[in-house]
Amino acid sequence: MMIIMRADARPQEIETVVQCVQRRGAQAHVSSGAERTVIGIVGDTRRLSQDEFIRMEGVDRIVPISKPYKLASREFHPQDTVFRVGDAVFGGAGLTLIAGPCSVESRSQLLEIAHAVREAGAHALRGGAFKPRTSPYSFQGLGEAGLELLAEARAATGLPIVTEVMSPEQLPLVARYADVLQIGARNMQNYALLQAAGRSGKPVLLKRGPSATLDEWLLAAEYLLAEGNLQVALCERGIRTFATATRNTTDINAVPALKDRTHLPVFLDPSHSTGRWEYVAAIARAGVAAGADGLIVEVHHRPQEALSDGGQSLKPERFAALVSEARQIAAVIGRPLAQPETAHVRPA
Amino acid sequence: MMIIMRADARPQEIETVVQCVQRRGAQAHVSSGAERTVIGIVGDTRRLSQDEFIRMEGVDRIVPISKPYKLASREFHPQDTVFRVGDAVFGGAGLTLIAGPCSVESRSQLLEIAHAVREAGAHALRGGAFKPRTSPYSFQGLGEAGLELLAEARAATGLPIVTEVMSPEQLPLVARYADVLQIGARNMQNYALLQAAGRSGKPVLLKRGPSATLDEWLLAAEYLLAEGNLQVALCERGIRTFATATRNTTDINAVPALKDRTHLPVFLDPSHSTGRWEYVAAIARAGVAAGADGLIVEVHHRPQEALSDGGQSLKPERFAALVSEARQIAAVIGRPLAQPETAHVRPA
Amino acid sequence: MMIIMRADARPQEIETVVQCVQRRGAQAHVSSGAERTVIGIVGDTRRLSQDEFIRMEGVDRIVPISKPYKLASREFHPQDTVFRVGDAVFGGAGLTLIAGPCSVESRSQLLEIAHAVREAGAHALRGGAFKPRTSPYSFQGLGEAGLELLAEARAATGLPIVTEVMSPEQLPLVARYADVLQIGARNMQNYALLQAAGRSGKPVLLKRGPSATLDEWLLAAEYLLAEGNLQVALCERGIRTFATATRNTTDINAVPALKDRTHLPVFLDPSHSTGRWEYVAAIARAGVAAGADGLIVEVHHRPQEALSDGGQSLKPERFAALVSEARQIAAVIGRPLAQPETAHVRPA
Amino acid sequence: MMIIMRADARPQEIETVVQCVQRRGAQAHVSSGAERTVIGIVGDTRRLSQDEFIRMEGVDRIVPISKPYKLASREFHPQDTVFRVGDAVFGGAGLTLIAGPCSVESRSQLLEIAHAVREAGAHALRGGAFKPRTSPYSFQGLGEAGLELLAEARAATGLPIVTEVMSPEQLPLVARYADVLQIGARNMQNYALLQAAGRSGKPVLLKRGPSATLDEWLLAAEYLLAEGNLQVALCERGIRTFATATRNTTDINAVPALKDRTHLPVFLDPSHSTGRWEYVAAIARAGVAAGADGLIVEVHHRPQEALSDGGQSLKPERFAALVSEARQIAAVIGRPLAQPETAHVRPA
Repeated sequence: MMIIMRADARPQEIETVVQCVQRRGAQAHVSSGAERTVIGIVGDTRRLSQDEFIRMEGVDRIVPISKPYKLASREFHPQDTVFRVGDAVFGGAGLTLIAGPCSVESRSQLLEIAHAVREAGAHALRGGAFKPRTSPYSFQGLGEAGLELLAEARAATGLPIVTEVMSPEQLPLVARYADVLQIGARNMQNYALLQAAGRSGKPVLLKRGPSATLDEWLLAAEYLLAEGNLQVALCERGIRTFATATRNTTDINAVPALKDRTHLPVFLDPSHSTGRWEYVAAIARAGVAAGADGLIVEVHHRPQEALSDGGQSLKPERFAALVSEARQIAAVIGRPLAQPETAHVRPA
Repeated sequence: MMIIMRADARPQEIETVVQCVQRRGAQAHVSSGAERTVIGIVGDTRRLSQDEFIRMEGVDRIVPISKPYKLASREFHPQDTVFRVGDAVFGGAGLTLIAGPCSVESRSQLLEIAHAVREAGAHALRGGAFKPRTSPYSFQGLGEAGLELLAEARAATGLPIVTEVMSPEQLPLVARYADVLQIGARNMQNYALLQAAGRSGKPVLLKRGPSATLDEWLLAAEYLLAEGNLQVALCERGIRTFATATRNTTDINAVPALKDRTHLPVFLDPSHSTGRWEYVAAIARAGVAAGADGLIVEVHHRPQEALSDGGQSLKPERFAALVSEARQIAAVIGRPLAQPETAHVRPA
Repeated sequence: MMIIMRADARPQEIETVVQCVQRRGAQAHVSSGAERTVIGIVGDTRRLSQDEFIRMEGVDRIVPISKPYKLASREFHPQDTVFRVGDAVFGGAGLTLIAGPCSVESRSQLLEIAHAVREAGAHALRGGAFKPRTSPYSFQGLGEAGLELLAEARAATGLPIVTEVMSPEQLPLVARYADVLQIGARNMQNYALLQAAGRSGKPVLLKRGPSATLDEWLLAAEYLLAEGNLQVALCERGIRTFATATRNTTDINAVPALKDRTHLPVFLDPSHSTGRWEYVAAIARAGVAAGADGLIVEVHHRPQEALSDGGQSLKPERFAALVSEARQIAAVIGRPLAQPETAHVRPA
Repeated sequence: MMIIMRADARPQEIETVVQCVQRRGAQAHVSSGAERTVIGIVGDTRRLSQDEFIRMEGVDRIVPISKPYKLASREFHPQDTVFRVGDAVFGGAGLTLIAGPCSVESRSQLLEIAHAVREAGAHALRGGAFKPRTSPYSFQGLGEAGLELLAEARAATGLPIVTEVMSPEQLPLVARYADVLQIGARNMQNYALLQAAGRSGKPVLLKRGPSATLDEWLLAAEYLLAEGNLQVALCERGIRTFATATRNTTDINAVPALKDRTHLPVFLDPSHSTGRWEYVAAIARAGVAAGADGLIVEVHHRPQEALSDGGQSLKPERFAALVSEARQIAAVIGRPLAQPETAHVRPA
């Protein structure tokens, strides 16, 4: 941590800061430039808070030096995190494809889509049983009945299940059925939920909040990791900006920027990050080209009848075409796609 | 709802949309301009979802006409919502001042600040016992011990208590002590929490999510109202933008824009919306001048020792000066400040 | 400037950075913490560029210490800038009100509005003769004929004229008529225009670009100041964010943040920063309450017939009411409004 | 255009709007729903302005139906625009690669880089002779001497020249040397410059303003097209958002969204859109995968010595590797790269 004093800071103010640092057991190195004094702090700074110093007289700004997340940081864990869920591998050399409907709507809908995405090459099945909806009047998901249908689809296709959990109370129920717990964008900083998911022992797919910085997102992951759950993957799903041509703005820069900062697998959700099916394939390809470890894509066999987010769902044949392109692009950048043929039906 | 077709939409595609509208029991009015066809939908459109239509061939965009929130909307409830909490009145002609420390830290800290803000003219005491923190390593609040201290401060000063609740499980505990439940910015779309708070019967202060539009915020309020809880106030606390000179960007436009859209009381939190105590008074005054019904301000007698957010806390004497200015500005725009002298110590 | 090295930076990389600093005549202070090495640079850093160092192996980030603007900075010029234009004073203790139509449309329109705003208490008249329009098909202003009408309105009312200049070629013509040159938001970083305006000797009202940070804005002002033109005022006119309830987001925080950073007068344009006349008075009052030195407000006697931006124009009687409120709020915060009665008709 | 009335609009107010529409020679279709009345306008709406109606009593919002840009719109010109500059083709089936230094610094620097990018497969050479710089104290480019060096590099390599023009006065000079005029992000709405470039007859590469919507950008292109200049290409270079991990946020969604809206070629500048060389290749590949027609990349043989933007420049060997990947990705999506071997040295 470095403390940058105001240009008009008085010697007394500088001295007060130095003493405060020392009282907390750290050392202060004072460096006086022509215009400003900068105080560098050495030693264990975890007991020092920025808040404490920003308030002191004569202080202009605080510049953090170390990353606030330790467990999520590549600095301390240079090796990529790789974990296996059924036959799907998250992280590593392969490209992992998760696909399925936004919401579980019915047995026939889910099974038809599950078989279609499996044939197209998906490694895991997504589908929402509990749906966070902006309006209290929108369809909120089938609940436990939806989870049962997901389990049935897993038994039928061998695909592990990725599904969202929305609250700590719901977690035991969802964890009974899910292979991977998805934490949605709106809950990225729902700390009670993060702690419960961290303790659940289940792998977690953590979506980015629509206005979260990478640091905030990695600190949310740190909540999971700090509970001992190391099976965490991140998923960019678009950020909120002034741009309105698409539902969200895909922060494609986040893909290489995350790979630089963290060892956790990085996914992209082109369905939510664009909000329009016409752009999903282009952005999915872009994600793979940028180095994402996987994609999570909404697929629906009759999108115009979907109960939620139909506008951003691909038809199965379009998804199959996308898988083919994504595989070839992955090969171009030296990333072999995990072959779906190697997947076996796993016992329900 | 209006459906705007693409310029190259074919007659067959237009016909398909019309039939889909009719199958759902509504009527479609087709209006063909020189370049585009627009389909207006009349009747009960609540069963129709935008998602359904945006996906159909030939559709360019959907324009919602009615507001998606009914209970929160001033269109349906022109009268201002006013409710009383102890001697504090939320909404109406007065200006309501909530003040106190970011976090409850100790008995002496809380009581000293509580007495100071009461003397300065505050109508309610804020203070966090459970703190949402970006990092899992930051101080997370005193928990129930903090709630007990808040109850003690209420007994000593007569000020009702506003404190944050972070999860549905926590709610029964917090509701036992709190007079007003605060739902923080990160939980604005935590629907399980909104529903639990809606059912609690306690007044709620709902902060805006850092990237929430006014419509999304009012839909979050709608979750509370739809549970039968009509004692809801909104609190602008800054949005996330590209601007980095302050911690957040105070969306001052939201104050008149909300008063136009909703009958719920509108508060401003200048401490979080700026993040620097030096700017708090200026922005608090701006909020009153723009028509806010109240302010919630962080006050700390020793901000440099605060365990959280010390940098944005006012000292009691600065808060007292602010109260004086805020009162005078409220008077300029025809809003008499509820006199704090009328408050009586309420039995604990 | 401080250079923060990556956690995995090698000694050789650190040494290379140090040598590079020294070759440019500055001194490098190396401070090695537990996790990172930070290199502080002392001496004249103006010859050092961030670009140069960010590229070097092992470098993580650069933290600038000094402000990049010298002439605009309050650090070097603590005294407020105050300048006089006719009888209007920009900066200082008073509150300066500029008002008038968005565009000059006709002789009768301009004169009627000019007299109305003068009677209401305005100190200067605004009106566009050259209009920057997003679409090439929109009304682009009356051009020189508009400037002549502005001169006539000045002769009739004594109000100095504030009008926009859009290009260096246009500048000599506009400067012949204008008392204050306005540089619009889209031209904030039009450096050829800034340099020409800087050399013109005319006072300049520099609007903020819709996505400009305060530093970028103050650097644009620095272009003017560096040409020797010290009569520069800044005008916040809203920034572009995700919020769509209003045309722009008024960055009210910018008012105190600018007063902290610069000695230049700070204005607010509530007409553009909201885009809706219904919110103009609320936001204008907020600006005064936050400490703005002046307002620039669009006024039109028949806004529904205005050729541009009618939706954000106040009728004269609403402007008069706003002036009364603004004066009272200015008085609350210890800022006496310059009395319009003291203004005399200045010879044309 | 559709006019959505407020829920509380009175019959008189609706009638007034209708009459206003009719007075301007268009027809109004009134559609009264349960909650709101919507007035659709049919006929030539170009004489009607949104501003006019938004101001009228009882009006809530205006929804534009037709795109405001006609010449740039794919609706009216479904065929892709393709144009040739020397041996480089902008638009069409190929992928066009523009590369070179941010600034022209010296003869040896420019020639070395020009030869390197030509060998790596670039089709055109970029290089700034006039540089827009945020600070008046930064290196502003070599000016005409730089243009002469660019012409020399063209003679030596056969690569056409893309270089920025910053003001209308500068345009005749720059146009004498340049093959393609670049209009930078800060000048996207510099209308005098757009008009001058439109009249110059030179092809133009129009960069997106950092906070421009797609509509605003296409309207800026419309300024060029309306002058009769049809050789216009667009270049996404990152937008300004809250995200700070990279210098800008690459709006990758803009690539398919633009291809949907316009027939003009779409380029991506991964150097400015990321600001860090480490991420340039990933984002360049993403752009190609998303369907961009070309890339413009900063290349420098000694980036740590570059006078501007060194931190985002690739070394020639890294650029060559990128070209190879970009070609393969282009092939995956059915876009053959125009072969650089077919380029011949063109007479100076």
